[in-house]
Amino acid sequence: MRQNLARAKLIDGQPVVNGWCSLPCAYSAEVMAHQGYDTLTIDMQHGAIGYESAVAILRAISTTPTVPFARVPWHDPGLMMKLLDAGAYGLICPMVNNAAIAEQFVAACRYPPRGFRSFGPNRATLYSAAGSSAAYAAAADHEILLFAMIETRDGFANLEEILGVPGLDGVYIGPGDLSLALGAPPSMAPSEPSVVAAIASVLQAAKRHGRFAAVHTDGPATARDRFREGFGLCTLQGDVRLLADAARKQVEETRAMSR
Amino acid sequence: MRQNLARAKLIDGQPVVNGWCSLPCAYSAEVMAHQGYDTLTIDMQHGAIGYESAVAILRAISTTPTVPFARVPWHDPGLMMKLLDAGAYGLICPMVNNAAIAEQFVAACRYPPRGFRSFGPNRATLYSAAGSSAAYAAAADHEILLFAMIETRDGFANLEEILGVPGLDGVYIGPGDLSLALGAPPSMAPSEPSVVAAIASVLQAAKRHGRFAAVHTDGPATARDRFREGFGLCTLQGDVRLLADAARKQVEETRAMSR
Amino acid sequence: MRQNLARAKLIDGQPVVNGWCSLPCAYSAEVMAHQGYDTLTIDMQHGAIGYESAVAILRAISTTPTVPFARVPWHDPGLMMKLLDAGAYGLICPMVNNAAIAEQFVAACRYPPRGFRSFGPNRATLYSAAGSSAAYAAAADHEILLFAMIETRDGFANLEEILGVPGLDGVYIGPGDLSLALGAPPSMAPSEPSVVAAIASVLQAAKRHGRFAAVHTDGPATARDRFREGFGLCTLQGDVRLLADAARKQVEETRAMSR
Amino acid sequence: MRQNLARAKLIDGQPVVNGWCSLPCAYSAEVMAHQGYDTLTIDMQHGAIGYESAVAILRAISTTPTVPFARVPWHDPGLMMKLLDAGAYGLICPMVNNAAIAEQFVAACRYPPRGFRSFGPNRATLYSAAGSSAAYAAAADHEILLFAMIETRDGFANLEEILGVPGLDGVYIGPGDLSLALGAPPSMAPSEPSVVAAIASVLQAAKRHGRFAAVHTDGPATARDRFREGFGLCTLQGDVRLLADAARKQVEETRAMSR
Amino acid sequence: MRQNLARAKLIDGQPVVNGWCSLPCAYSAEVMAHQGYDTLTIDMQHGAIGYESAVAILRAISTTPTVPFARVPWHDPGLMMKLLDAGAYGLICPMVNNAAIAEQFVAACRYPPRGFRSFGPNRATLYSAAGSSAAYAAAADHEILLFAMIETRDGFANLEEILGVPGLDGVYIGPGDLSLALGAPPSMAPSEPSVVAAIASVLQAAKRHGRFAAVHTDGPATARDRFREGFGLCTLQGDVRLLADAARKQVEETRAMSR
Amino acid sequence: MRQNLARAKLIDGQPVVNGWCSLPCAYSAEVMAHQGYDTLTIDMQHGAIGYESAVAILRAISTTPTVPFARVPWHDPGLMMKLLDAGAYGLICPMVNNAAIAEQFVAACRYPPRGFRSFGPNRATLYSAAGSSAAYAAAADHEILLFAMIETRDGFANLEEILGVPGLDGVYIGPGDLSLALGAPPSMAPSEPSVVAAIASVLQAAKRHGRFAAVHTDGPATARDRFREGFGLCTLQGDVRLLADAARKQVEETRAMSR
Repeated sequence: MRQNLARAKLIDGQPVVNGWCSLPCAYSAEVMAHQGYDTLTIDMQHGAIGYESAVAILRAISTTPTVPFARVPWHDPGLMMKLLDAGAYGLICPMVNNAAIAEQFVAACRYPPRGFRSFGPNRATLYSAAGSSAAYAAAADHEILLFAMIETRDGFANLEEILGVPGLDGVYIGPGDLSLALGAPPSMAPSEPSVVAAIASVLQAAKRHGRFAAVHTDGPATARDRFREGFGLCTLQGDVRLLADAARKQVEETRAMSR
Repeated sequence: MRQNLARAKLIDGQPVVNGWCSLPCAYSAEVMAHQGYDTLTIDMQHGAIGYESAVAILRAISTTPTVPFARVPWHDPGLMMKLLDAGAYGLICPMVNNAAIAEQFVAACRYPPRGFRSFGPNRATLYSAAGSSAAYAAAADHEILLFAMIETRDGFANLEEILGVPGLDGVYIGPGDLSLALGAPPSMAPSEPSVVAAIASVLQAAKRHGRFAAVHTDGPATARDRFREGFGLCTLQGDVRLLADAARKQVEETRAMSR
Repeated sequence: MRQNLARAKLIDGQPVVNGWCSLPCAYSAEVMAHQGYDTLTIDMQHGAIGYESAVAILRAISTTPTVPFARVPWHDPGLMMKLLDAGAYGLICPMVNNAAIAEQFVAACRYPPRGFRSFGPNRATLYSAAGSSAAYAAAADHEILLFAMIETRDGFANLEEILGVPGLDGVYIGPGDLSLALGAPPSMAPSEPSVVAAIASVLQAAKRHGRFAAVHTDGPATARDRFREGFGLCTLQGDVRLLADAARKQVEETRAMSR
Repeated sequence: MRQNLARAKLIDGQPVVNGWCSLPCAYSAEVMAHQGYDTLTIDMQHGAIGYESAVAILRAISTTPTVPFARVPWHDPGLMMKLLDAGAYGLICPMVNNAAIAEQFVAACRYPPRGFRSFGPNRATLYSAAGSSAAYAAAADHEILLFAMIETRDGFANLEEILGVPGLDGVYIGPGDLSLALGAPPSMAPSEPSVVAAIASVLQAAKRHGRFAAVHTDGPATARDRFREGFGLCTLQGDVRLLADAARKQVEETRAMSR
Repeated sequence: MRQNLARAKLIDGQPVVNGWCSLPCAYSAEVMAHQGYDTLTIDMQHGAIGYESAVAILRAISTTPTVPFARVPWHDPGLMMKLLDAGAYGLICPMVNNAAIAEQFVAACRYPPRGFRSFGPNRATLYSAAGSSAAYAAAADHEILLFAMIETRDGFANLEEILGVPGLDGVYIGPGDLSLALGAPPSMAPSEPSVVAAIASVLQAAKRHGRFAAVHTDGPATARDRFREGFGLCTLQGDVRLLADAARKQVEETRAMSR
Repeated sequence: MRQNLARAKLIDGQPVVNGWCSLPCAYSAEVMAHQGYDTLTIDMQHGAIGYESAVAILRAISTTPTVPFARVPWHDPGLMMKLLDAGAYGLICPMVNNAAIAEQFVAACRYPPRGFRSFGPNRATLYSAAGSSAAYAAAADHEILLFAMIETRDGFANLEEILGVPGLDGVYIGPGDLSLALGAPPSMAPSEPSVVAAIASVLQAAKRHGRFAAVHTDGPATARDRFREGFGLCTLQGDVRLLADAARKQVEETRAMSR
């Protein structure tokens, strides 16, 4: 079975640089996958991406060694299983507020006896096991990474019990929602002391439990800080933001120079 | 009928800043259309865009005041008419090598008696004339801009006869192909004297004939130079290039800082 | 932030005329959006429309001042949030049987502290706030309209508690399902006394609670009656019905005349 | 091989009522196909329909006994052959200006020795011959109907030579373009004497040559008149027109009654 | 209303041969539907098929007398209702672990008073009732087949209570998951005594309760054995497996012969 | 630049086994690409595949080392260039009847000075040159294979002049059309002496001119014979045929055993 290179890097303590896709477009995703990210996450929560576009993007990522992740819109076992069957090698679940949600997330993504994932890898066996579903079944629970998002008051309050759920690989901090939940304006690089403290305590708790810690950022500088703090995976700006900013900058420069 | 703002600006001597879409994605195009370009061109020649995606992108652009253009893959009257019927307000035709091709291009895009465009505006009447096909028919030939690309040895040699075709609004220089045609490496900001001279002579000829001159560039600095030289419309970098460069830059900066 | 014109009309006591889309087609929706409806609802429950077509239709509606609504297939927070992030300005939730379902519906669609909507407006910021997600966040809870459908025995029985859920803007009556639930044949203009009485009592309860009342109809005549009764928003026939009836009528007339 | 019911009716002198699809939507086409038309034409010229949507619409029509036709955007042999391979049972070719174009049209759609259609029916064998490509090959040239549009000055002038092309089944009049070509405003029920006379003379010429005559109309009344004049096939209003008119009528009636 | 031929065969004791679609492709499904299966199931659980492709496949199947079934990814009432509204004549629900899940499945798929299916058949009325939604409503609960999958430890333990749910038509065994659940390697033709015994006891229980028994197989030989054991419906290999095996066999044979 | 492995094998005299895709489905194509073919051809002539599906299939093939080819529907330079820009590494052009058509085919696919291919590789640079369009431009003319189909009377008669066109890599025989052209029934393994002789003479002429010879077959046995005769590339059965035959065989076997 194809090894999950992101998992190997995380274990090895190397920074994992994650890209982010919100465009429902296999070509833009293929372009992203060629830019050097370790992992590329298909955002099915806030991104404009439905299931079939997600599969097309998984295929686009498979033309490169970049590791394909997906963020699901909700803790719905049906879609989680479909994404794993389509070849996702990591899932990020939003709004994990307590151990019960975390447990359902993990159980939906692991085969029996650990969980209740239904057997029928489809495209996943092409992607990872040369078409052998038996080889896939033997290794999938080991290779696939599962991250629970900590981004609500409840999730933060129940952090310890969430981290205690066996089979969960890590936590993923959404600084925007976490800020809102704590009464601060949404930010990808929050400076509110309460939010700063919350992020730090999630990181420390994750380390104490031997889990990976991941976080959304607003770009390279914040990511560097996060890696230094001890986060294993940092997400840079997504495709929509990158494209909008780059385009606007060119238009504004051109207008400024052409008056 | 909705006025073609780009045409008004060209007549008025104001710089027209053109964006470029190669992604077959209505959402990325909608993002582009909100960044301040005067016009946005759907590249059906080298871009990965088929007819139905082009229509979806025309719709996305229609959510903004940006003026929708399209570049066709070839001088095929069928597709030209379909794009106009879908609401394009400007067409760019590649590889116009002589007056016969230019004439066919113009004739396919103008109603009788000037040309042979078939009557049946469809989405175009929603976009531009509140659903009235009669209003559309009365104004379309006037509002829609037609640019012939000069980018081959033949096109350059036959420049005068091409510029003489009635109803052609302007010429559009493809510096990449023109460089190749003249034996130089392809470049969007060519410095080869032969190519520099060719571009200058196309510009002068266009002005002499009272046609607009448009050109592809590699970004704001070259665009500024082109506008100063007298070009009316300059194309900045396309969506694929903008996205790839912005993503790669973030990855490289992050890796450089996180070692 | 772009104002919700339907909300302004409802507050002002002006009739809101709602169109209905069941075809998974951005072009037919764009045609509908140009016919003068105040609002246009994408029916993801009984209509043949999945998420990505819904986004394409939201884009089509955005080419006009018509206000975009969507009806979700079920009280699934994931899809509700995705539709709001894609720019819906109103949501209609079917089969709201009790206050708990109503509360989950409202909470999924409002940001903290009122609810738990996750922060990440995407296309919504282009549509409504010139790309500023902060402006969107500040106004979204105020502008977006939420309607709970009353159409089951339970929903009717629990009407008072449903109307008491803070943040719910109104109720929407589905006369077809309500008829079935009360043992009558499904109808969009029911005459069964029990159904007539139920509709009247929902309307009165809504007014008592200061909520808007909306209802499905079978066309202009019933809509007129409903507006006179005090309903604020009436839905006319949907695209499939309009198309089928108009086509069949032409065929039958032609055959009758051409024998 | 499945019989072409429209051809049988034409031979039998029964009126063939033709519907018209401009929406790129298999569901709206399936709705249309259930309304009683004899034939349903996919308009790939002015309609917003590309090749793959056309195939989906052909499939939708195949759920009914309605006979599937397509109008191509231009006399391009590649697309003509693809549509026949996908199961079209009739093709309408626009802007047939002379015998050479008519000959190329016919030759592209008939197998050797009559023409040069390439052998490889694909979906067509499922639709018409229970999967047997040999059965299809034996009967296709006989069952498939080919109509040349007469709608330009040249086409009208060269009518006799066009009608003389062997293998052409009929002519199809586009009154809108023909009006424009003759200097009259475009109309689907023209009253300009020159256009009226032209239509009559095309009809008479077709009859003289033993060809079928078909024509676009603006609805049942004009269709009735055309059938009485001797036309074999009349096209009623298309899906976009039907939908837009029916929707606008409901909105206007509702507003008028609800003031 | 169109009769469910599969239901008639099951009642009559004739073997129902079921095909399986995992490709999100209406053309491959149309090809499958022409090969003689009694029923064809769209696998939305492990297959790579989203909602809109499922509708396109339902349309493709409707070009033949083959009866369309779908397997849903999870016991989500929203999607179940949408598939029935799109014309599915049978649903298979995975991972039915207890009577509560079975009850929710049945209730979502039956109209009041038996269940809570919302009224609004859309494409279903075209498929089965010539466009009459009243005719559809009268017969749908009777014609549509509902199968609960027994494939987990819990489902097996709670078999009796599941079979006791009124309105459930049958059980469907997933031998792969059932094997995994019982600690055996996944297999479509299991030989592990514990799995063999479990399958036999599910079959006997179904017969005792007067329910139909259905099962997945690995092809004709196992299907024959299952029919002889008393199963009423057997699923053969799916499209992906059929295509992969047939292609690989041709490549290997060619290479073996061409060395 | 990524090497064209098929070209290397042809030069080396190793048999090139070609697969054939007619389904407009990236998943089925990805399945095909994993079965061991050297090359996989997207059939845009008789297959049900439009441009955007072709790009999605090129992407699917890029997840494997299989070399992507496409057959175009007609000698239209626009589509040829778009397919090369999307990453095709070989093109097959149907109905090449004379040297002029062959010359246009080659010229459209080679950069100046040899041809007039327009510069703007897009996805092609991701596929083959790590994003460097300069590297692509330098090697593309060398790596990309161009095959002219000989399948008409004219093509056969003009074989020598066609083979003399510089830059053409080979000829591809379509036995079905060639049979029809010579008055024999269409067959992929023709036994008619005139067709047998024609195929042999094309092969000999190709060898004399130092061109590769390729041919369509009906499966492994015929392919073996063709390789022995000296053909370099043989096409096995396409996806539609493979799937239909495999499915029908399972249904028939099951019915035969289950009576």
